[in-house]
Amino acid sequence: MNLFIALLAGGSGTRFWPASTRDLPKQMLPLAGGAPLLRETYDRVLALAPPERFLVVTSERFADAARALLPEIPATNVIGEPAARNTAAACAVAARWAASKAPDAVLLTLPADHVISPAEDLRGALVAAAAHATSSGALVTLGLRPTYAATGYGWIRLGEALAQEGGRAVHRVAQFVEKPDRTRAERYLADGGHLWNLGMFAWRADAFLAELARCLPDVAAKSALAMDSIARAYDGMPSISVDHGVLERASVVDCLPCSFAWDDVGSFAALARHLPKDAAGNCAVGPLLAIDAKGCIAWADADRMTALLGVEDLIVVHAHGATLVAHRSRAEDVRKIADSLGQAGLDRFA
Amino acid sequence: MNLFIALLAGGSGTRFWPASTRDLPKQMLPLAGGAPLLRETYDRVLALAPPERFLVVTSERFADAARALLPEIPATNVIGEPAARNTAAACAVAARWAASKAPDAVLLTLPADHVISPAEDLRGALVAAAAHATSSGALVTLGLRPTYAATGYGWIRLGEALAQEGGRAVHRVAQFVEKPDRTRAERYLADGGHLWNLGMFAWRADAFLAELARCLPDVAAKSALAMDSIARAYDGMPSISVDHGVLERASVVDCLPCSFAWDDVGSFAALARHLPKDAAGNCAVGPLLAIDAKGCIAWADADRMTALLGVEDLIVVHAHGATLVAHRSRAEDVRKIADSLGQAGLDRFA
Repeated sequence: MNLFIALLAGGSGTRFWPASTRDLPKQMLPLAGGAPLLRETYDRVLALAPPERFLVVTSERFADAARALLPEIPATNVIGEPAARNTAAACAVAARWAASKAPDAVLLTLPADHVISPAEDLRGALVAAAAHATSSGALVTLGLRPTYAATGYGWIRLGEALAQEGGRAVHRVAQFVEKPDRTRAERYLADGGHLWNLGMFAWRADAFLAELARCLPDVAAKSALAMDSIARAYDGMPSISVDHGVLERASVVDCLPCSFAWDDVGSFAALARHLPKDAAGNCAVGPLLAIDAKGCIAWADADRMTALLGVEDLIVVHAHGATLVAHRSRAEDVRKIADSLGQAGLDRFA
Repeated sequence: MNLFIALLAGGSGTRFWPASTRDLPKQMLPLAGGAPLLRETYDRVLALAPPERFLVVTSERFADAARALLPEIPATNVIGEPAARNTAAACAVAARWAASKAPDAVLLTLPADHVISPAEDLRGALVAAAAHATSSGALVTLGLRPTYAATGYGWIRLGEALAQEGGRAVHRVAQFVEKPDRTRAERYLADGGHLWNLGMFAWRADAFLAELARCLPDVAAKSALAMDSIARAYDGMPSISVDHGVLERASVVDCLPCSFAWDDVGSFAALARHLPKDAAGNCAVGPLLAIDAKGCIAWADADRMTALLGVEDLIVVHAHGATLVAHRSRAEDVRKIADSLGQAGLDRFA
């Protein structure tokens, strides 16, 4: 199996302001106090392929930072997108790159801003998915057994069971459902036949490019220029997700069910799941002193101390000369702050 | 009238951590966004005497900072106390200093960490108090007409009315009452015969020293060494307030009633009275962006931005590498944070 791995690191992460800024996106932050998420993503799967078989697709603004985080990878294997064009374009560029390396390339395409453990379980699932993609020619997506009735994720309705792959069941995908309402999500959770779509894919480069040419001919044509000039490839490149643009339209998509601890760390509120807590449920990256405080999350990008007194359920984040104090229930709205900086004359903190 | 003015700037202000630290006390902070309180105190009364007639009594740790804030005053007119010995010692040193300058010196002794306006009203009261002290030989304290039933201040019960001084009534003090309970405070407020004790005094240096020798002979004896060696004067100096040690025991204390806007800025919560507010009642020193936030106070010692999202009634203070987030109702307890730093291994932020 001629395996290649593409890490998609294109997001900006305004829900993580001020930790994430225009120049430092979520995937390059050590959000849970360890390594930056991109680096952790690489470390989890580096056992699957040598460094020269890794590709990172990110914004051209972040390309040098990505190279610094992953010095093992050849610098030319970090592609800086001149503009954000969603995941179909990034997946297309990655497939072009893999196909240029080997005609029978099999490609894993992974988001670079998730927290997953244990890494062995992830690797086992990815190897099985890649093996199935190799033998079947299908586009394969990983489906995670759900742990709650999530309304913010995409779900996969499983179809018929196919032959096992390395001792694992593989299913045809019957349907993709984007962000169902509460009632439907609860039904999905109860019926056992629906999984979360993680955005982690395995496919043969040639198979993906054939489906791309059929489903998104413009993206296919533009991406054909990418190995010569990423600027020309992205000039006029349509912006669409690979889920909507390709997977939902492809003739055959299979799903490899898997289960491991997974978190897309969608906001600061998610950090509480990854940090040790004191007796009152407070957690922190950086020095914290809490008196009569509970359920708070503090995060600092440097040796900045947070003192909490008589407060509850707050998110307090210090970074880049700014401090955010938000109620935990409003973590999703942090982007509103990030989006309002310019209008408030505070663009220097964006 | 041979007028001298002593500014007492000895407090440490742990209720203002992290803005105030071991090395930077409350009175040297620009709390309300203008000049530091010590500088504002000087500016309010500089019209009353030339700079060389001002004395600052502060901690020896803060002496150089005080000299930098008040460069007009001769450096030797800033006395650094080797240890905190409360206000009797500081008033005694100030009286010794004034007496050494002129045998008929009249001394105004003022706290350096209050906010008062308009300054003309204060100066008018001080001049009248000094004139009365000069002519009568009494110790004179300023009494402020109360605006609410304060339980945290000392009150003065007015006795018989004396001759007017510059068109102002002067009263004998019948009694000092320290921090009355709510019921008594409400009675005091209603009866009109009780005023707040501001800790602002006028007396002839010789009259004060005579009372000091009678009421606190140890302090009197020790303070006699101060003009030669402040270290020797403070070695073994008793620690007692001038109110308890002298005023409550003196044979004659008179009170000059006055009224002006006065605030001892006892905690960060008091800042809200001195800062402009947005429509939701938020106020700030430093850049602030508030979304769905109300009643919050933000304060930064530098160009550090505060973003508030979905929170209410918080105090957020950034200074010296630390950030405090406290509920407004807990402003008085900020000292608990300051006092816990060492134990928490965070002494570097103290």
